[in-house]
Amino acid sequence: MKKLLTILVDCPDQKGLIYKITSVLYQNELNIIKNREYVDLDTNRFFMRTEVEGLIDEAELAAELKEALPDQSWISVVSDRKKKLVLLVTKENHCLGDLLVRNHFGEWNADVKAVIGNYEVLRNFTERFDIPYHCVSAEGLSREEHEQKMIQTIDQYAPDCIVLAKYMRILTPDFVKHYEGKVINIHHSFLPAFIGAQPYKQAYDRGVKIIGATAHFVNHHLDEGPIICQNVIPVDHSQNASDMARAGKDVEKMVLAQALKLVLEDKVLLSGNKTVVF
Amino acid sequence: MKKLLTILVDCPDQKGLIYKITSVLYQNELNIIKNREYVDLDTNRFFMRTEVEGLIDEAELAAELKEALPDQSWISVVSDRKKKLVLLVTKENHCLGDLLVRNHFGEWNADVKAVIGNYEVLRNFTERFDIPYHCVSAEGLSREEHEQKMIQTIDQYAPDCIVLAKYMRILTPDFVKHYEGKVINIHHSFLPAFIGAQPYKQAYDRGVKIIGATAHFVNHHLDEGPIICQNVIPVDHSQNASDMARAGKDVEKMVLAQALKLVLEDKVLLSGNKTVVF
Amino acid sequence: MKKLLTILVDCPDQKGLIYKITSVLYQNELNIIKNREYVDLDTNRFFMRTEVEGLIDEAELAAELKEALPDQSWISVVSDRKKKLVLLVTKENHCLGDLLVRNHFGEWNADVKAVIGNYEVLRNFTERFDIPYHCVSAEGLSREEHEQKMIQTIDQYAPDCIVLAKYMRILTPDFVKHYEGKVINIHHSFLPAFIGAQPYKQAYDRGVKIIGATAHFVNHHLDEGPIICQNVIPVDHSQNASDMARAGKDVEKMVLAQALKLVLEDKVLLSGNKTVVF
Amino acid sequence: MKKLLTILVDCPDQKGLIYKITSVLYQNELNIIKNREYVDLDTNRFFMRTEVEGLIDEAELAAELKEALPDQSWISVVSDRKKKLVLLVTKENHCLGDLLVRNHFGEWNADVKAVIGNYEVLRNFTERFDIPYHCVSAEGLSREEHEQKMIQTIDQYAPDCIVLAKYMRILTPDFVKHYEGKVINIHHSFLPAFIGAQPYKQAYDRGVKIIGATAHFVNHHLDEGPIICQNVIPVDHSQNASDMARAGKDVEKMVLAQALKLVLEDKVLLSGNKTVVF
Repeated sequence: MKKLLTILVDCPDQKGLIYKITSVLYQNELNIIKNREYVDLDTNRFFMRTEVEGLIDEAELAAELKEALPDQSWISVVSDRKKKLVLLVTKENHCLGDLLVRNHFGEWNADVKAVIGNYEVLRNFTERFDIPYHCVSAEGLSREEHEQKMIQTIDQYAPDCIVLAKYMRILTPDFVKHYEGKVINIHHSFLPAFIGAQPYKQAYDRGVKIIGATAHFVNHHLDEGPIICQNVIPVDHSQNASDMARAGKDVEKMVLAQALKLVLEDKVLLSGNKTVVF
Repeated sequence: MKKLLTILVDCPDQKGLIYKITSVLYQNELNIIKNREYVDLDTNRFFMRTEVEGLIDEAELAAELKEALPDQSWISVVSDRKKKLVLLVTKENHCLGDLLVRNHFGEWNADVKAVIGNYEVLRNFTERFDIPYHCVSAEGLSREEHEQKMIQTIDQYAPDCIVLAKYMRILTPDFVKHYEGKVINIHHSFLPAFIGAQPYKQAYDRGVKIIGATAHFVNHHLDEGPIICQNVIPVDHSQNASDMARAGKDVEKMVLAQALKLVLEDKVLLSGNKTVVF
Repeated sequence: MKKLLTILVDCPDQKGLIYKITSVLYQNELNIIKNREYVDLDTNRFFMRTEVEGLIDEAELAAELKEALPDQSWISVVSDRKKKLVLLVTKENHCLGDLLVRNHFGEWNADVKAVIGNYEVLRNFTERFDIPYHCVSAEGLSREEHEQKMIQTIDQYAPDCIVLAKYMRILTPDFVKHYEGKVINIHHSFLPAFIGAQPYKQAYDRGVKIIGATAHFVNHHLDEGPIICQNVIPVDHSQNASDMARAGKDVEKMVLAQALKLVLEDKVLLSGNKTVVF
Repeated sequence: MKKLLTILVDCPDQKGLIYKITSVLYQNELNIIKNREYVDLDTNRFFMRTEVEGLIDEAELAAELKEALPDQSWISVVSDRKKKLVLLVTKENHCLGDLLVRNHFGEWNADVKAVIGNYEVLRNFTERFDIPYHCVSAEGLSREEHEQKMIQTIDQYAPDCIVLAKYMRILTPDFVKHYEGKVINIHHSFLPAFIGAQPYKQAYDRGVKIIGATAHFVNHHLDEGPIICQNVIPVDHSQNASDMARAGKDVEKMVLAQALKLVLEDKVLLSGNKTVVF
């Protein structure tokens, strides 16, 4: 039976790459449905994302492509199996609400396996959707102890992707490393403006006329991981910091949902501290 | 010496097209700088735009590609020679002003060769930029007679592209056919809303909260040619029809400039009554 | 105890209106918190929305204002009591999902009292939020019979506002009249473009580069009631009609939520077939 | 003969202010055309902007209003006389081009009296519009010496407003103080992101998905004056720093023109380091 596969390539740029890759696809009678390429001239790396249809084993195709491509190429052939998601929350509900509704109605080729919070606040809401909720309180625990318990709870679900849906705790480098490239965060500002705490207070104090939100992969530098999506909304002098925060919620949940959709569809590649979004 | 060429392909879709095309490029030692493809599943046509660098004659490359591709393929290999532009105007100045400033400072790989109007109003402004201005008055002439004179005036400049920069006369099918695929218009509404005359009056009467502008290729159906670019701005109840018209000018000139840039960079292909914008 | 009141005025324009109104407020020792005015020069009507704080009875204040204002003035003094909402749905879930989450977390000074649909599809989802769901099937009924049953079901909740959250049935003038000025609809296009059925199919066929959504009050002309909010998102050639429909859902739910918030906060006045949004 | 006057008020908030102000207007038989108010709850200041029509002397009206208002009120009554503008430039042409075209076609109730640059580059372009161009080279001069010459050149035109249309020199506190509240700058980033030099390089390095521009009043802290307008455009991974800079020019010139229009129409009041834009 025909399969839909997504091929991701990140390799040193050189002449003839598309020819070499499509030559492998042609020999295997794969039909190209979508294809995007990009060359980062700063790093001289070539990026490609190709959706193909045909009869072939993922591992075999990956091996053939590896053969055809230069050394130090990274190749991934992804089948269309359902991905597993875990959502991390604290007390704010707007991103969680939006994601659970989308999940409930099967908007993605993915399933939310669990919601994990450091408070009980969002348990009732989560359980209305028949999704398990785990409360891992940080009370009385060191950051490391708490993260150990979080990791144990998360790992039982073997998630493909972890979404920080307004999870308001700072992560240690060890936690980040454990889930490298798998953690998406929504930051309630138009990064890199207003890094850190209380961005809406900062925005109000600065008298800005536009506020925004940024979805990004999490890395070891707080609020500085590769940006996936950003969006903004206009504000004016009549809105105080808490009005801005309220208005910001809608753009936050929209940007997070856009970023998650792109990630779940394997459309986001990493290029250093930037993303290539196909 | 190395040349920069843009290859445009519009052909029946089939397996292996990218492989076949890039195979020709690889054999000719051409380096792919940018590449985009699209398959229109309604019409089963494949579209591709590729920028390459190398040593090859345009006609020769086009011939080799034709050989490699199925029947009924359309192939164009475009060098980076400067394109020639003619602008048509009536009395409004905002689009003309923006385009002449961009042209004056060499923003495009193109030159405005002349401005042609049906009134004298914009002569003085045009001549400040040392661009010839021709007034072809429609007074006392039938539509056909006027267009004949317009065509004579335009054709002496052999333009690659004709921009209707608020040219407020309806064109006959003959005129449109004479310049098929070469004429861009800016329509002062978010098409297909408010087709026809006085779109801002219509928008005001309808109480809309957003107005827009549409740049499109001109075909024989008024305001119904393939859309290249659209953009919008918010309006509110406090703006009357003439406020909206004033506000609309900024979005009109921006949208027209965006569309023209895309066309001059050979990024717009036609697919029936739609555009593929790479 | 101090009350928060919202005063809405729609009256013939004449000199001194603000002075006369604020004079009444001053004499009653009311503190103005927010104030907006607008004069529609086409109809010569004056509109005002004022938030005041103080100790006064709503009816008394309305009477005093009536006294101070010209004949044919419409005055409304609204207390901050919770409003009652009823949502009407068919099968699509995105607007309902968004509204029920917002309601669940108390985002408005209003309560969703019931969801009424013409199918059973959304019962399970609605009941997860402990909101009553009524299915009023149209099967085997004339339009009038069905609407009669709808009205009976709706009226038991005495709603202040009825939201058509993707309710896909055409309403009769009688139904519309019964709930005059109380029914909000979300139309899945950037009205007045693509009036009628299948707007995304129409948009795709036209090759537009932007799609949108429109929230409006319902009147007797289908899709032609006063517009409250509109918003748009960019699309491109690579999206087919169903991709556009999917993308459109996010803008639909956002626009409907914005419009509903404005209506619930008494910020939308009617001026003929337009809205004045303060 | 009837005059159009704009009244600006910035005073301590207290009960009855609108009543007291409109009472003065009513007694003088002035017709209110537009009216906006705002109370800054942080500072407890009341702001109002009112357009009136009638027969009264500006100074007399200002005096009557002063009488009616609390101590420490700031009142300004502005007639509709044409304002005088001076533009400062360095080498970039896009903002200058846009402003000179708008000025040429009389878009504002204002006149550009002169363009002053620190290079000769933009002389030829400026003079095409019959606007005097002064080159005040900074070569061999200390910052103070150069500014002294700038001030002499500027002051002969007694401008109401000075526009830094990509004037790339840092201003001293003395210069800023000399023209307090009169100098508008366009910053090529979405402030406060990317403060300082090379914002597009910074934006590219950070991998942002949106870039913007900010028009603000200049104060003694570089890039930190009160923000008037901001706007953004989307970018993606395929654009390098210089592509972003090119794309940014269009949003820069649009934002600067919006801000200048607001300032020329007396719609921008200062509230500490923020603006109130009516």
